[in-house]
Amino acid sequence: MSEKLAHEKVLRDPIHQFIHIQDQLVLDLINTPEFQRLRRVEQLGVTAFVFHGAVHDRFGHSVGAYELARRITDYFNQYYQSQTEGDGLWNPEEQMVTIVAALLHDVGHGAFSHTFEHLFNTNHEMMTQAIITGDTEINRVLQSYSPDFPNKVASVIAKTYPNQQVVQLISSQLDVDRMDYLLRDAYYTGAAYGEFDIDRIMRTMKPCATGIGFDISGMHAVEDYIVSRYQMYLQVYFHPVSRGMEVILEHLLGRVKELLVEGHNPSDLVGPLLAPVFEADHDLTVQEYLRLDDNLFMTAINGWQDYPDQILSDLSSRFLNRKPFKSIQINEQSAPYIDELEQVVKDAGFDPIYYTAQNDAYDLPYDDYKPTAKKPRTQIDLILGDGSHRELSDLSALVASIKGRASLDQRFFFPKEMLNNGPDDLFSQVHQNFRSLIKNDTFIPGER
Amino acid sequence: MSEKLAHEKVLRDPIHQFIHIQDQLVLDLINTPEFQRLRRVEQLGVTAFVFHGAVHDRFGHSVGAYELARRITDYFNQYYQSQTEGDGLWNPEEQMVTIVAALLHDVGHGAFSHTFEHLFNTNHEMMTQAIITGDTEINRVLQSYSPDFPNKVASVIAKTYPNQQVVQLISSQLDVDRMDYLLRDAYYTGAAYGEFDIDRIMRTMKPCATGIGFDISGMHAVEDYIVSRYQMYLQVYFHPVSRGMEVILEHLLGRVKELLVEGHNPSDLVGPLLAPVFEADHDLTVQEYLRLDDNLFMTAINGWQDYPDQILSDLSSRFLNRKPFKSIQINEQSAPYIDELEQVVKDAGFDPIYYTAQNDAYDLPYDDYKPTAKKPRTQIDLILGDGSHRELSDLSALVASIKGRASLDQRFFFPKEMLNNGPDDLFSQVHQNFRSLIKNDTFIPGER
Amino acid sequence: MSEKLAHEKVLRDPIHQFIHIQDQLVLDLINTPEFQRLRRVEQLGVTAFVFHGAVHDRFGHSVGAYELARRITDYFNQYYQSQTEGDGLWNPEEQMVTIVAALLHDVGHGAFSHTFEHLFNTNHEMMTQAIITGDTEINRVLQSYSPDFPNKVASVIAKTYPNQQVVQLISSQLDVDRMDYLLRDAYYTGAAYGEFDIDRIMRTMKPCATGIGFDISGMHAVEDYIVSRYQMYLQVYFHPVSRGMEVILEHLLGRVKELLVEGHNPSDLVGPLLAPVFEADHDLTVQEYLRLDDNLFMTAINGWQDYPDQILSDLSSRFLNRKPFKSIQINEQSAPYIDELEQVVKDAGFDPIYYTAQNDAYDLPYDDYKPTAKKPRTQIDLILGDGSHRELSDLSALVASIKGRASLDQRFFFPKEMLNNGPDDLFSQVHQNFRSLIKNDTFIPGER
Amino acid sequence: MSEKLAHEKVLRDPIHQFIHIQDQLVLDLINTPEFQRLRRVEQLGVTAFVFHGAVHDRFGHSVGAYELARRITDYFNQYYQSQTEGDGLWNPEEQMVTIVAALLHDVGHGAFSHTFEHLFNTNHEMMTQAIITGDTEINRVLQSYSPDFPNKVASVIAKTYPNQQVVQLISSQLDVDRMDYLLRDAYYTGAAYGEFDIDRIMRTMKPCATGIGFDISGMHAVEDYIVSRYQMYLQVYFHPVSRGMEVILEHLLGRVKELLVEGHNPSDLVGPLLAPVFEADHDLTVQEYLRLDDNLFMTAINGWQDYPDQILSDLSSRFLNRKPFKSIQINEQSAPYIDELEQVVKDAGFDPIYYTAQNDAYDLPYDDYKPTAKKPRTQIDLILGDGSHRELSDLSALVASIKGRASLDQRFFFPKEMLNNGPDDLFSQVHQNFRSLIKNDTFIPGER
Repeated sequence: MSEKLAHEKVLRDPIHQFIHIQDQLVLDLINTPEFQRLRRVEQLGVTAFVFHGAVHDRFGHSVGAYELARRITDYFNQYYQSQTEGDGLWNPEEQMVTIVAALLHDVGHGAFSHTFEHLFNTNHEMMTQAIITGDTEINRVLQSYSPDFPNKVASVIAKTYPNQQVVQLISSQLDVDRMDYLLRDAYYTGAAYGEFDIDRIMRTMKPCATGIGFDISGMHAVEDYIVSRYQMYLQVYFHPVSRGMEVILEHLLGRVKELLVEGHNPSDLVGPLLAPVFEADHDLTVQEYLRLDDNLFMTAINGWQDYPDQILSDLSSRFLNRKPFKSIQINEQSAPYIDELEQVVKDAGFDPIYYTAQNDAYDLPYDDYKPTAKKPRTQIDLILGDGSHRELSDLSALVASIKGRASLDQRFFFPKEMLNNGPDDLFSQVHQNFRSLIKNDTFIPGER
Repeated sequence: MSEKLAHEKVLRDPIHQFIHIQDQLVLDLINTPEFQRLRRVEQLGVTAFVFHGAVHDRFGHSVGAYELARRITDYFNQYYQSQTEGDGLWNPEEQMVTIVAALLHDVGHGAFSHTFEHLFNTNHEMMTQAIITGDTEINRVLQSYSPDFPNKVASVIAKTYPNQQVVQLISSQLDVDRMDYLLRDAYYTGAAYGEFDIDRIMRTMKPCATGIGFDISGMHAVEDYIVSRYQMYLQVYFHPVSRGMEVILEHLLGRVKELLVEGHNPSDLVGPLLAPVFEADHDLTVQEYLRLDDNLFMTAINGWQDYPDQILSDLSSRFLNRKPFKSIQINEQSAPYIDELEQVVKDAGFDPIYYTAQNDAYDLPYDDYKPTAKKPRTQIDLILGDGSHRELSDLSALVASIKGRASLDQRFFFPKEMLNNGPDDLFSQVHQNFRSLIKNDTFIPGER
Repeated sequence: MSEKLAHEKVLRDPIHQFIHIQDQLVLDLINTPEFQRLRRVEQLGVTAFVFHGAVHDRFGHSVGAYELARRITDYFNQYYQSQTEGDGLWNPEEQMVTIVAALLHDVGHGAFSHTFEHLFNTNHEMMTQAIITGDTEINRVLQSYSPDFPNKVASVIAKTYPNQQVVQLISSQLDVDRMDYLLRDAYYTGAAYGEFDIDRIMRTMKPCATGIGFDISGMHAVEDYIVSRYQMYLQVYFHPVSRGMEVILEHLLGRVKELLVEGHNPSDLVGPLLAPVFEADHDLTVQEYLRLDDNLFMTAINGWQDYPDQILSDLSSRFLNRKPFKSIQINEQSAPYIDELEQVVKDAGFDPIYYTAQNDAYDLPYDDYKPTAKKPRTQIDLILGDGSHRELSDLSALVASIKGRASLDQRFFFPKEMLNNGPDDLFSQVHQNFRSLIKNDTFIPGER
Repeated sequence: MSEKLAHEKVLRDPIHQFIHIQDQLVLDLINTPEFQRLRRVEQLGVTAFVFHGAVHDRFGHSVGAYELARRITDYFNQYYQSQTEGDGLWNPEEQMVTIVAALLHDVGHGAFSHTFEHLFNTNHEMMTQAIITGDTEINRVLQSYSPDFPNKVASVIAKTYPNQQVVQLISSQLDVDRMDYLLRDAYYTGAAYGEFDIDRIMRTMKPCATGIGFDISGMHAVEDYIVSRYQMYLQVYFHPVSRGMEVILEHLLGRVKELLVEGHNPSDLVGPLLAPVFEADHDLTVQEYLRLDDNLFMTAINGWQDYPDQILSDLSSRFLNRKPFKSIQINEQSAPYIDELEQVVKDAGFDPIYYTAQNDAYDLPYDDYKPTAKKPRTQIDLILGDGSHRELSDLSALVASIKGRASLDQRFFFPKEMLNNGPDDLFSQVHQNFRSLIKNDTFIPGER
């Protein structure tokens, strides 16, 4: 069992003012090396190349999600305590598993997660569960609370935990994870779009038989949250310049893989901590994974600037010194003609494998529950005065307008040099050809 | 000559909303590798171990200081333009050197500057000047503006530039550097203390024959700034827990030096980029220095956890996993008896050279001009209605109360284990001895 | 001609930090009695009965709208100055008429405007023009600038001024009036919904041949503004409780009219300043109108509590002591049966003429230009990279979802007593009948 | 006994986000006419003539002070609950009297309190007690809780309540009243000076045997509060322009008194609600007092503009149209020569009784407990780790610098016309004489 601390400890947090730590268990979890590692993993990765303020890390987000879970479950404890089993109300005994799951939900995130998972075939959610249930300090702390506690927490993150209220607080379309990261990303980027009325949302949240609902009086606050999220995706997370950095990162890591395949000496290319990542046919162990962080990758890239492979050293230098690839929009009509663009880039002396990329930014801002979907969404339900439920987009024209409609931004990336236009431009004719294929920031395939 | 951009570019900044870039020169400077390196150097170093939000870097601070300089000199251009030489007003031709000096004032900062400079005998101000005047991209951009421009900018930072208005805007007791970092540190830590009324201060700033003065109507805003600064030092910068991390960092880097002296193989201990730092009797070149950043040190520390030296691996692990040394206050009376404490720590099995430290946090929050001081301060002058000047503390009781009075917090640091108090504590008697020397967080020497 | 002030004056403003006054003309206008009267007219009237913080007045809003106009036109002066006539750019000579029209656009607003205009058949826009062109201090100040200046300013407010850029800055679907009041109302109510990214909107505003457009890069900020406005209407301006106060106000003023018609002595009922308002067949003169303010009405209501007419004294007391009528939603289906409700209210002893009301809150959040509409809207145009225009809802699914769709909240109001449910309730059976007609806050007509 | 509400009600508040109302008693008190009257009494009176945003009323401040009291006592209930009598901890049974006293502490405030009390010999604190214990709705609500409850609440406000913890939470040098008004005034004026770290202060507050102390870890937050308060007095509350309005108000009300003494017809001068105020030798009853509000005075002043007394109509017009008297500083040396100034004002045709004034703004920002003082202050005590107490200024140099040192700003007020300097100035010689007595905004007596 966990003991309450004699006096709560607080962490100063710029978003929630204070993170209140009231349980020895929570304090012990924060003090594990695995949790402290989150200080070395940035929340938004390459986005900070565009929004320079956004250098916050996953440690802050994790304690923030915990704090929201703590506040919501405290509120549930006070106002919606279950009286009889099956009354659809809140069981206070679920508080600890909820706040711990909120705290640990991102513990498996690694450096530049998106790029990393794509290239190295890992998955941060699986890794989170592995860290919770594997041979780690976190696991030992959780076991000291109760032997089955690691599995309970892991099942919340896997969404297999039986109590849907708990699961939905941690992962649904309006959960503590999203609420914290939207507010936090808005604060650190300086973009006002991500702000919404979290106090009101938390006050209108209600446990119910199917999970979590929202009192009808909170509808507009929920609408505002959905719209904020939608705006943050379009304005911040999809930003073409940070994606112009991301594709460089992808290509330079891909180049290292390729060089190793070609027989370059691993010990020249990657130090001992990074080596397991690039080892062929090797699944990273939890211990290996936990040594990785942003610093390790950035340091390797710093070093690769000196490596005697022209492509690797050039891409590394572009990444470190923020020379993003430029981009233009493509669409279903123009996508088939992309080899036309790649050819011109090649004519200008760049290997298109490493110097061009197609990158699609995609988000489905909101959807209702679609039982036949591959990953059905938990829809947001509003609760009327008489207790009946209505799905959000039923009542909100705003949300209906974006429901089930994916936001999609497809782009073709290429070196900035392709836009050169100077008198001493060696490839002046090629560059001119290239520019002739672009209109209003969009690829217009030529005739061939 | 610099050309104005056809349309200004802006960077979203959480403190100043937007950083406005209106000159090609400024844009080119920001795009140099040397300036981009500032993204990889945190502003507050170990402070983020206590205030988890405070992970902002020197890139943001540098463009912030630039933006303040731009706004102030725009205001001077509009309202205080010199009419005849020597009228003590503002010469608009000084704007460019001012905003560029503001932008570049920190470009020589390295990772964990304070610790680093102390251990490796470098100096970030000298390094800033070396980067501006040496063989760098920044230098080439500055030269393209005018051949003597690098030297002019460097002399502003060296405070030898003839125009005192420019010098004082960049470095004085109320300059763009301090104004930006106080606001920025307050924003990122979440501590409200650092806030002050920057709009009012900027509106009451005036160029004058002796440099920069402040209209009497701004006195209370200036007072508030001084008090905010004072509070930030005591509450944030002096925080004993972050200093408990700093001393570990110092000791672990010191241990590496020592191991190399003892003949350990450099290539086992430090990679190629870090090697020059530890080379005996070697002055770092600008090029070597510019490869250093936070990531490099953090990655080395990550690796040292596996190094077969018990002290180095232990200290590295404590640092990476945030296990700060604890501390107690000492003072002039008790300082001479510190060996008493060191002895007990040694009795508990810790080498006091690496497991204890005395650390003094010191700041002189404000002083008037003292011609005989080693580093005389530029005092803050208020300008009365009839144009006469009065030194700030003459009129402000608040400021008078802290003028010339150093804030000092002297502490003795030791491993947390010394406070153990459990039944299975191997050194239970030693730890008890240790605790008997502490009262109210302060060292009380015993009788010997 | 107006002279620039030797040094700008500033007003501290909680929304825009400072209002910068740089012209003698603007200062003189602010100092007229007609403009100072705006301090005595609240911006949101009865809304403060629900959002207690929202007691701000039209003085603050007017100088705020001025400040936005000043900033935008300064920006236009700097970046979009017309070179040749008809190039669709900005003529700096239009700045003065723009900022003065912004300052004065609300000068004809009276106490509780909405209610007042409805009952007494006045119109604040006509009144604004009358004050600008009539025998007033404002008119004299404007004339001193140039003899035709009053008419120019008035024609901007009447939207007949030839320059559409000026007209649209002052009144369109995204003008300085709306931008200021949304931000200001959000600040004072404490509702976050009204916030949007005004800095970004102002940076993407562009003068063009048809008036004012917005660079495509600002689309999401404009979307956010439209959504914020939509939310403020639904959440704040339509609030049923403040409308429950408004209908009391309407009825009590109507009762005074009725009593006068019935022959009550005017000098007992209304003091000399208020008398002209209630005089039969009398059009208020500008001079009479300008003596009216919130205080006058509130003081009269305070006094009417003692008046020997039961209905007037009761309604006055309800208004002053905040005893709002309650309400239920009605709709097209149920509206025809409202006499059913009125009858029950009558059965409970209340005169339905004074103790019930139907009140429709209506807003059309956005519409495109519809040439055949009664009041065609100026649509919001986005400007693409090649200079072509697209109407906002063409590109924004969010805005398309609310375009041309009126927000409407129809309610029936009645005394709170109708919901009584106590044992000592005299009208217990009547009240029960009444409640049986309500379900989920909505009127469900019974069978008759 | 009070019942808890089934679900708390909240009021949206721009300072504290939400005011949480959890008790039927508190809700009933807010709904009394006497409490609702506070909506019609502005918090800062004439200050809004300078800081136009600062139009907030005492209703908002009162519910704000209540909310702080609620949060602090909730915290005390959770962490510092008394175990045995006399242990110096907190008795939860004191919560209700504390939050109710906080809610009602200003209920006796009237329009323009400072001026009013001075002229009409009333006292808002006595009036508050009279309203609580007299024949009022508030009294009836309090009695329904328990018959002795009105007296208990009144005694807290009178500071005679036996429990010093309760008394000091409501009135001391750091109480809920001051904390709320500083934050609120800062928010509404837009002046940042009033901000301080209320969250931290509330967390370090501790009940103790002598009342309320502050944990040493909160010292800097308390310092910051003291300094903020000091700054708000100097920058906002002492503002010479609002005092230039206040002296006009005083003089015009004084003129009405004088005219009545001279035999003018009361019914021509003052309406029925205002009449009791001006009745000779009449003590206002609670019922008469409760009819007074800002509107009544402002309406009377509006009307007095037409009154056939030149002085009254002129002063009324100056007040309503914001034509403040100008002022210069005087001091102990120059004060005796003020008749010199008055004579020149008289020479210019103004009756010095009504057109000049001496006005001293005075505040003692902090003091320790001085048993022999007329009104001894409750000093602020810091609590060390071992439980011992230290008075704040003992440890804080900042606070020591202002302890016991009154802030004083003595000024002489006169009509703006005295500074006229134009060619068509009738009194040009007199005005020149007047100006010759002023230097640097200060009175320099001439030789006579």
